[in-house]
Amino acid sequence: MTSEQPDVAAARHRLAGHAVRTPLLEAPQINAVAGRRVLVKAECLQRTGSFKFRGAWNKLSSLSPDERARGVVAFSSGNHAQGVALSGKLLNAPAVIIMPADAPAAKIDATRAYGAEVVLYDRDTEDREAIGAALAAERGLTLVRPFDDPFVIAGQGTCGLEIAEQAAEAGVTAADVLVCCSGGGFAGGIALALETTAPFMRVRPVEPEGFDDFGRSLATGERVTNDRTSGSIQDAILSPTPGELTLPIGRRLFGPGLAVSDTQVLAAMRLAWQWLKIVVEPGGAAALAAALYRADAVSGDAVIVTASGGNVDQGVFERALGVG
Amino acid sequence: MTSEQPDVAAARHRLAGHAVRTPLLEAPQINAVAGRRVLVKAECLQRTGSFKFRGAWNKLSSLSPDERARGVVAFSSGNHAQGVALSGKLLNAPAVIIMPADAPAAKIDATRAYGAEVVLYDRDTEDREAIGAALAAERGLTLVRPFDDPFVIAGQGTCGLEIAEQAAEAGVTAADVLVCCSGGGFAGGIALALETTAPFMRVRPVEPEGFDDFGRSLATGERVTNDRTSGSIQDAILSPTPGELTLPIGRRLFGPGLAVSDTQVLAAMRLAWQWLKIVVEPGGAAALAAALYRADAVSGDAVIVTASGGNVDQGVFERALGVG
Repeated sequence: MTSEQPDVAAARHRLAGHAVRTPLLEAPQINAVAGRRVLVKAECLQRTGSFKFRGAWNKLSSLSPDERARGVVAFSSGNHAQGVALSGKLLNAPAVIIMPADAPAAKIDATRAYGAEVVLYDRDTEDREAIGAALAAERGLTLVRPFDDPFVIAGQGTCGLEIAEQAAEAGVTAADVLVCCSGGGFAGGIALALETTAPFMRVRPVEPEGFDDFGRSLATGERVTNDRTSGSIQDAILSPTPGELTLPIGRRLFGPGLAVSDTQVLAAMRLAWQWLKIVVEPGGAAALAAALYRADAVSGDAVIVTASGGNVDQGVFERALGVG
Repeated sequence: MTSEQPDVAAARHRLAGHAVRTPLLEAPQINAVAGRRVLVKAECLQRTGSFKFRGAWNKLSSLSPDERARGVVAFSSGNHAQGVALSGKLLNAPAVIIMPADAPAAKIDATRAYGAEVVLYDRDTEDREAIGAALAAERGLTLVRPFDDPFVIAGQGTCGLEIAEQAAEAGVTAADVLVCCSGGGFAGGIALALETTAPFMRVRPVEPEGFDDFGRSLATGERVTNDRTSGSIQDAILSPTPGELTLPIGRRLFGPGLAVSDTQVLAAMRLAWQWLKIVVEPGGAAALAAALYRADAVSGDAVIVTASGGNVDQGVFERALGVG
């Protein structure tokens, strides 16, 4: 862990011309369901299909030429894997991704397609930390953490700078900003970005019901851990406890957390398909679901939500459309 | 018909802050299928789900206050209807859309949801032109043509200005630009925009097989008309013959046309869903299908395509996913 502070402005400079400036979308039909304006930051359109590319790119492009040449290693079964894989490919940093052998084949294939070396491990009998440590020592790889890294947090924060600008263009300068939240890197980065550029906006983390460790940690003042590690289709946002770097950011800057059910998320995915023309994965639709179905817990004439990712298996997507 | 020339720069000024600056997307997996870089202008993310909002907004915002107050009328069963409806609502211009009674209920409902008055007619027994003329005379409505209007062409052309800028950011300044083409307003507007901003780009119209009136008109030097008016799922781009204003633009600026099958379009829709995370309708996927499956007819290291719209019925979308 480093004590360096996340520098969102520097991250934006590094990402310019490399990350997609994703649009902030709005549809009258979505607004009608929510009872207020809903501005949707379509980060599922980011390279590799999620915001994770931002943090990975910022981290890898901050490494020294030597570090890059030796390569990077990450643990992930999902979006972080793909963000690190593509960033590594584009920046000529060999990437090793340690993935559980029972991860969806589509995600393993996609990670390989983005150019990474995938090392599979058995969740029941092997220790991924030990595998990663051995690889890192042997090859001199740099570990890219999914959220507890100031460069990763700063990279995710570039999305917040765009939100501030695009919302202002849409006439919105004060709003709750609902962010799909797992370890808190995305929500934390956005909050840091908004602190200086949009002082009347407030980040609120959105998590799956039963996996709302971040919201409960904020509410209780104690770091809490989820009882379960699986059992929701919102697979991208099931990490067990807030990050070491991100929880203090959340305590200082976040509003109260929200939690949504899988059923609400599936309905939000369908509305996003129908009216916004975007493909959103379950964990990426949590914030939209909160805007639509927890409207009582949100105030103001407008709400901003992240559609954080779109890497969804076809079977789950069919469930959202009602044909699965 | 007016003799005024399309003014794309003025249109951009009118659209600023009102239309979405849609992203130019790219995915390695799409590139791999096409055998070259494919940059996808995701205009399905435009307001109302298609580029048609651009032209409609430019036309309606160019009307005098008196004209706007009296209102507008348009004939359309699809995307133009929705673009005019929402523009009218936002600009306080009452909009009447004349739609066939057998148009998909979803499109009729969406047009009403965007605030328009929908007048249904019977295709077999009624004349929509007569209905429109009577309404226009009675209420002093302004007719908004779908493509043969310099303000509409100029509005669509704003997409071309964005393509030139975004492609340059992606390192592409010379490419074929494949545009889904019906009457030619979108392709023509983009070609006018690129003529001054990207002289090494060339628009090529893409149409459904058997409905390639524009491509054949370019090839033969004669204005030709399609034999059929229905029989393809690419419903948005089945107009029978090139426009009066757009064909001369095409003759001067377009490269040869391309035609794609419904099967190719369905496959392109699925790849766009899987890798770009966008929802594209059949007629909006024609250009991507040409890049993917007519690669032999395209040259260069990169190709740019429009994903023109996303207003697709669920049943058709399920066919693209292979579950319909």
